[in-house]
Amino acid sequence: MKVKGRNYQTIWMKDFMVRMIDQNLLPFDFKIFTSRNYIETCFAIKTMIVRGAGAIGAAAAFAMAQAALEADNRNYFTYIETARAEIEATRPTARNLFAATEQVYNAALINPETAVQKAKEIAEKDKEDSKKIGEYGNQLIKDGYRIETHCNAGWLAFVDHGTALSPIYRAKESGKSVFVYVDETRPRGQGAKLTAWELINEGIPHAILPDNAGAHLMSQGLVDMIIVGADRIALNGDVANKIGTLEKAIAAKYYKIPFYVAAPLSTFDSKCKSGKDIIIEERSQEEVLYQTGMDKDGNITEILVAAPDAKAINPAFDVTPAELITAIITEKGIINPENEKILSII
Amino acid sequence: MKVKGRNYQTIWMKDFMVRMIDQNLLPFDFKIFTSRNYIETCFAIKTMIVRGAGAIGAAAAFAMAQAALEADNRNYFTYIETARAEIEATRPTARNLFAATEQVYNAALINPETAVQKAKEIAEKDKEDSKKIGEYGNQLIKDGYRIETHCNAGWLAFVDHGTALSPIYRAKESGKSVFVYVDETRPRGQGAKLTAWELINEGIPHAILPDNAGAHLMSQGLVDMIIVGADRIALNGDVANKIGTLEKAIAAKYYKIPFYVAAPLSTFDSKCKSGKDIIIEERSQEEVLYQTGMDKDGNITEILVAAPDAKAINPAFDVTPAELITAIITEKGIINPENEKILSII
Repeated sequence: MKVKGRNYQTIWMKDFMVRMIDQNLLPFDFKIFTSRNYIETCFAIKTMIVRGAGAIGAAAAFAMAQAALEADNRNYFTYIETARAEIEATRPTARNLFAATEQVYNAALINPETAVQKAKEIAEKDKEDSKKIGEYGNQLIKDGYRIETHCNAGWLAFVDHGTALSPIYRAKESGKSVFVYVDETRPRGQGAKLTAWELINEGIPHAILPDNAGAHLMSQGLVDMIIVGADRIALNGDVANKIGTLEKAIAAKYYKIPFYVAAPLSTFDSKCKSGKDIIIEERSQEEVLYQTGMDKDGNITEILVAAPDAKAINPAFDVTPAELITAIITEKGIINPENEKILSII
Repeated sequence: MKVKGRNYQTIWMKDFMVRMIDQNLLPFDFKIFTSRNYIETCFAIKTMIVRGAGAIGAAAAFAMAQAALEADNRNYFTYIETARAEIEATRPTARNLFAATEQVYNAALINPETAVQKAKEIAEKDKEDSKKIGEYGNQLIKDGYRIETHCNAGWLAFVDHGTALSPIYRAKESGKSVFVYVDETRPRGQGAKLTAWELINEGIPHAILPDNAGAHLMSQGLVDMIIVGADRIALNGDVANKIGTLEKAIAAKYYKIPFYVAAPLSTFDSKCKSGKDIIIEERSQEEVLYQTGMDKDGNITEILVAAPDAKAINPAFDVTPAELITAIITEKGIINPENEKILSII
C-alpha cells in the first residue's frame, strides 16, 4: 500500500538483506530498517520494529532463510538449528512465527536456496490472502458506507493489504465512497496512530473516535457496519481480539448493525473449542497510566495521564462470543461459524 | 472529603472571600485558589478552576453574594444586576449556575447579608443532597462489591460528597469493603485523573480501566454494579452523561449487571420530554488528538497521540435510554423513571 504516494509492503527480502518499515517510529517518522543477518532480524522482531501476526510470520521466515544463507558447510545443520531456537524465542506467543520457522527450517534442510524460496512464498501467501479477504469483504460494502474499525488490522500488521482494512481499500479502488470511524484503541492507541496513518496515506476520509464514542454514533444511525481483525478464533466462532472489540460487538447487536471479523484461516486455533479456552494476556499498568506521543519539539515522549499513585489494570484482549458476530471474512470466502463446521474448512 | 488526611470541600465562603480547590492543577498539584471579589470568582468559573454542576452552582451563588457585599449604596442595584449578567455569561450551558444566580440575586434585592445567607444555603443544600444520595445508594451496595464508575461524579464536581461516588464513600464509612473500577474516560481522562485522585485520598482500593475494558470485566463476572452521574435527565428517564456512559449501560444490560444513575433531582429537566430533545455538545478534535499529563520533570505538558494530520470527532455526551437504567438514586430516594411520574417528584 502507499506511503507518501509510493508503494511499500511492510517487509521484504533482497539477496541476504531483509528490509522492513520501522514501526516503532510510526506515525511520527517513516524509516526503513535494514537487517543484514538473522540476528538483526531477531532483534527487529523482539523490539517490535516489525509487529502484527502476518508481518511477524514473514520476518521469522526471512530470518530462518538468512540463517541458511549465512551458515557455512561445515556446521550448517547446527547453525540453522540454533537460529531456529533463537528466532522462536523472540515472541513466544506469536502463532504465525512458529508455523513460518518450521516450514523454512524444513526447506533449509534441503539447501539455502530452497529456504529462501519458501520464505518468499510465505510472505507472498500472506499478501495474497490479505488481498482475497479484501475482495470478499468488499462485496459487503455499499457505496457511501460509514465503517467503524478497532485497533490496527491494516497492512502494517501483515505483509500488505491487511485484514479489517483490506475490504475498505478494495472498496475505494472499485470506486465506492467510504468513510472510516477509527477507534482510538487505548491504551496503546493503535487506531489513532497506525490505522489513521494508513488511511491518510491512502487518501481515505476518516475520523478518530475516543473508544467511548462508538455506541453513541451507532445510536445516531451514523455507522453502517463494523469490521475488526482477530488475534485468535475458536472453533465455535468466538473471537479473541484487541480489548474493546467485545464492547463494540455488544453495542452493534443492540443497534442491529452488522459486525464482521476479517482474518485469514490461519487465525483459527484447532486446539481451541470455545472462547473460554483462551487466556487473556494482562499487560503492565504503565501502558494505561502513561501515554506516549510527540511533544511540541517533535520528540517522542511519555507523560503521566493519571493521578500519581493510582493503580490500573490492562487486559490486552477480550473474547467476543460468536452470537455477536455477523460473519467472518476469510481468504476462502465469508463464513458463519455458527452455521459451518470450521474444522472442515481450515 | 479528605485530601492528604485533612477534610476539605471544593468551595467555601468566609467573609467576602471565596476559596476553592484549584481543579486545573489536579491531580498533579493541590492548591487553594482565593477569590477576593466577584470578578475573580467569574474568572475561576470561566477557566475551570472550579468545575462540575454542583460546585459551579455554589461558585455562582458566592459570586453573586460577593457582588452584593462589594456594591456601595449609591449604585447598589445597577452593580448587582451587571454582576449577575457577568456571572451568567461565564458558563452559559451550566443549568445550576442560573438557578443559583437567580436565587441569590433576589436575596440581594433585600440586602447583602440576606444574599450571603442564601448563597451559603445553596452550597449547604448541595452538600446535604449529595450526602443523602450517598445514604440511599449505600442501601444498594453489599459488602465486597466491585463497582464500576465512569468519568468523575465525585465530591470534586459538587460542594462535597458527590453523586456516583457518594454511595461508595458511605459504604466504606459503614464498614463495607468495596473495590472501584474507574473508567479512564477519554478524551479528558476525568476518571484516571480526578476519580482516582479522590479514591486514593479516601483510601479506597481501585483500578483505572481503559474505557475499552469494561465489557470484558463484566463478561468475567468481575463487576457487581455500575454507578454513574448525570448531566441532564429527561422526564422519561433518559440520561445524558459523559460520552461512554451509553456503551457501559448496553454492556451491563447484556451481562445483566445493575446500572444506576446517581443525581440530585435538580438534574431533571422539566422542559425535556425524552433524550431525543437533548443536543449533544461536539467539542474540539484537539482534545482527542492531544493528551495532557505530567512529564518526567514534573511539568504539565501536551503531546500528540495520533497520526499527524489525522482528523477526530469528539462528542462530549451521550444519551442512555431509560430502558437500560436500573434506577436513579436521588436525594429523595431511589426512583425508577419508567414506573414513576417524574413531574410529581421534582
